[in-house]
Amino acid sequence: MELKVQKYKKDFSYSYALGFFPVFELIKHRPETVLEVYLSSRAAGLEAGNKLAKLCSDKRIRFSSNDKVITRISPRNNCFAAGIFKKFKCELNKSANHLVLVSPENAGNLGTIIRTALGFGVSDIAVTKPGVDMFEPSCIRSSMGGVFQANIAYLETFEDYHKQFPKRYNYLFMTSGEEQARAVEYKKPFSLFFGSESSGLPEEYKKYGDSVLIPQTGKIDSLNIAVAAGIALYEASK
Amino acid sequence: MELKVQKYKKDFSYSYALGFFPVFELIKHRPETVLEVYLSSRAAGLEAGNKLAKLCSDKRIRFSSNDKVITRISPRNNCFAAGIFKKFKCELNKSANHLVLVSPENAGNLGTIIRTALGFGVSDIAVTKPGVDMFEPSCIRSSMGGVFQANIAYLETFEDYHKQFPKRYNYLFMTSGEEQARAVEYKKPFSLFFGSESSGLPEEYKKYGDSVLIPQTGKIDSLNIAVAAGIALYEASK
Repeated sequence: MELKVQKYKKDFSYSYALGFFPVFELIKHRPETVLEVYLSSRAAGLEAGNKLAKLCSDKRIRFSSNDKVITRISPRNNCFAAGIFKKFKCELNKSANHLVLVSPENAGNLGTIIRTALGFGVSDIAVTKPGVDMFEPSCIRSSMGGVFQANIAYLETFEDYHKQFPKRYNYLFMTSGEEQARAVEYKKPFSLFFGSESSGLPEEYKKYGDSVLIPQTGKIDSLNIAVAAGIALYEASK
Repeated sequence: MELKVQKYKKDFSYSYALGFFPVFELIKHRPETVLEVYLSSRAAGLEAGNKLAKLCSDKRIRFSSNDKVITRISPRNNCFAAGIFKKFKCELNKSANHLVLVSPENAGNLGTIIRTALGFGVSDIAVTKPGVDMFEPSCIRSSMGGVFQANIAYLETFEDYHKQFPKRYNYLFMTSGEEQARAVEYKKPFSLFFGSESSGLPEEYKKYGDSVLIPQTGKIDSLNIAVAAGIALYEASK
């Protein structure tokens, strides 16, 4: 198969893992999706480069040194390895704890949140539309390849989530939340909800569960969403 | 005074706050440093634009609509307002709680950490060299203008910090930390230490205080530094 390897666009059926760490995570967790792996000539002789070459050979993955491709797909041209893979779909585990992101806007934030959720044992993540694309290379990179390990499902609306997953303990993190994050007893299976960077969760969502506040001094407008989600995940997984 | 307004470089004596929110924070907290404020013609008629024009007039700050300047200094050309300001120096408050960042590498992370520290009541931040520049426009932006409200001081080395601030309770956040973040009793004035994104704090730093761990599942290599610092600040400020 000959791929038209060019700068990523959302409507592609494939995407790129850029950097050694994400490429190793890709091959470990989603080997069946890998189409080809490229190494930069600048990585020649590096231990990670040799390890990657051997891994691809063992798993019969197409592998080549190709600076042209890497330059074309890596925005800052600062990556040593790239893995091209077919996009995949996931289903959420009904009995597991969930994180639910309502229309997240920034790919870097989404990736950081995925990485953090895995760190606190939450592998099932729902994203409602319009949510930023989990396959954006910058999301894959900031997730440190976590997108390959997590179950991430895109849903049309917030209401669809509730229809599909009705019997859960819902905690809605809001700057107008009524209970303090530290004082909440998180029952399982839980779903932790976050709104978008620019607008948070609408007030009327409070009817769906307990609204939770992460108290802060008021010297700032709000916490960064990835920091707030990190604190929520840390508290809920204690 | 005529400024040579061009893409930011570290050796400039001035820098840029990009976006309405950071510009308002600049004028609020560091009015004496402001050299000039520019508005994009795309912001014409917006309430925030009118408010900014009035504020600059009240405070006798040079103000103009200038798309050329904004295009030149805004990397993605997506900002509506820009404030040019003279760089300033801060001194840490000896009796306050501190956050100490050992050679942070990424400007976006530094900005997010500054914003979070303010949110949890820690306004005094030490950065050891080589640490990324707090005046990088991307740091100012991710701090949401928090750089103008915080006291951020650059120190030559980690040892210099200890010489200048000897009598404090030091908590070193490390993936090999010996006490769990949740179980620590944070005595005041505290200093919370974080290493760089790529290498963390060296083992030998443990002699300077209590080493602290934020437990995670091990599904990921480590937490993002801004998320980890957020959890540390959240715990220490409880």
